[in-house]
Amino acid sequence: MHVVVNAAISIDGKLSTRRREQIAISGERDFERVSALRADSDAILVGIGTVLADDPHLVVEEPHRERRQDKGMTPTPHRIIIDSRARTPTDAEVLDDEAPTYIIVSESAPTSKQADLEVEGADVIVAGRERVSMPAALSALTDSGINSIMVEGGGEIIFSLFEANLVDELSVYIGSMLVGGRDAPTLADGDGFVEDPTQLQLTSVEKIDDGVLLQYDVDATAPSSYDSAD
Amino acid sequence: MHVVVNAAISIDGKLSTRRREQIAISGERDFERVSALRADSDAILVGIGTVLADDPHLVVEEPHRERRQDKGMTPTPHRIIIDSRARTPTDAEVLDDEAPTYIIVSESAPTSKQADLEVEGADVIVAGRERVSMPAALSALTDSGINSIMVEGGGEIIFSLFEANLVDELSVYIGSMLVGGRDAPTLADGDGFVEDPTQLQLTSVEKIDDGVLLQYDVDATAPSSYDSAD
Repeated sequence: MHVVVNAAISIDGKLSTRRREQIAISGERDFERVSALRADSDAILVGIGTVLADDPHLVVEEPHRERRQDKGMTPTPHRIIIDSRARTPTDAEVLDDEAPTYIIVSESAPTSKQADLEVEGADVIVAGRERVSMPAALSALTDSGINSIMVEGGGEIIFSLFEANLVDELSVYIGSMLVGGRDAPTLADGDGFVEDPTQLQLTSVEKIDDGVLLQYDVDATAPSSYDSAD
Repeated sequence: MHVVVNAAISIDGKLSTRRREQIAISGERDFERVSALRADSDAILVGIGTVLADDPHLVVEEPHRERRQDKGMTPTPHRIIIDSRARTPTDAEVLDDEAPTYIIVSESAPTSKQADLEVEGADVIVAGRERVSMPAALSALTDSGINSIMVEGGGEIIFSLFEANLVDELSVYIGSMLVGGRDAPTLADGDGFVEDPTQLQLTSVEKIDDGVLLQYDVDATAPSSYDSAD
């Protein structure tokens, strides 16, 4: 399984304002880059926080659909929602018919909610007890034939993936703006590392639109302190 | 008054871990760049949070001292602490004899604490009622002959300065690491902007050590929504 995390942040690391309202961080060229990255992936993954805040559609448009179909793929990538308590609204955009959708829940999710989501056409996968276990989730997705995932947020999911040492690449577009806010969501939230931050290797620096795109490989030679817990 | 904000952050915008323990974000070349930037400034400014967490010295060493003295300047820049309630410890490194130190307090600071700091040689300036008013503080410092300030943090002070539209330049070194933590201090904390982030103009992108240095001018043509409150 190859996991790429992609996000756009302000120079102070924020994904949005403290009200969790989306702000236009990147421009047209970065939008096209992200569409191409999506189209190259088997699946696009977000957390339930992102679904509740933004109700994203998580699809690609032409010319990517035709290109994917020429390769024998679904027109648009599978969608994956990490949703420990099965809170995805049944009228969420990600539950439309444009692509298959996996909802990964924990054992704590009410079975009636799981059933509601299945009625809407979602594939519900249980992975983890109180909260979704990311290693178990990715293992189950691999078993379902998903070999590459593009993660689009939010900060809780992104930190969980880094904490479990499951990320291969990180792409961050830094928009030329400062948002501020001690409570605004950042690229990586969660509890955070205390002693051993995840070390990255800067592989690319590129000016795009009015900002800059930084790309990293996750340094597998310097694993995080959480590895031993896996 | 020319105000430059300089900071080193992780790719997720963090100045340190959630325990507010310093982490080595930048390397030797960036350290030299920061020393030169300090040496070109009349004063170095930090918030009380930084003093309490790190007890920084905020001085420059040779060859900068001799160069400054050749220009008729003090060997090392003045030090400025933004400290609403006069909590700077009397044995703080910034209160040694190596450079003059201004402590900017609010009217709410106990006068006995202010007197203790003056005994230690600090110049105490009162600016603001409950909290330090940044416009009033910078105005008083200008009256004292300070014409250029390098701001080194933390995130509360940096946001206050952006909120009051007092920043001219922003230099951010992005270390190749991910720290995480919804409670870890970021480059700009405070309440944060809700609708109109401060717009920046990217002026320079440079790889330094294992990371990247981004430099911005603050876009005076797109003032923040807080201007009207000044």
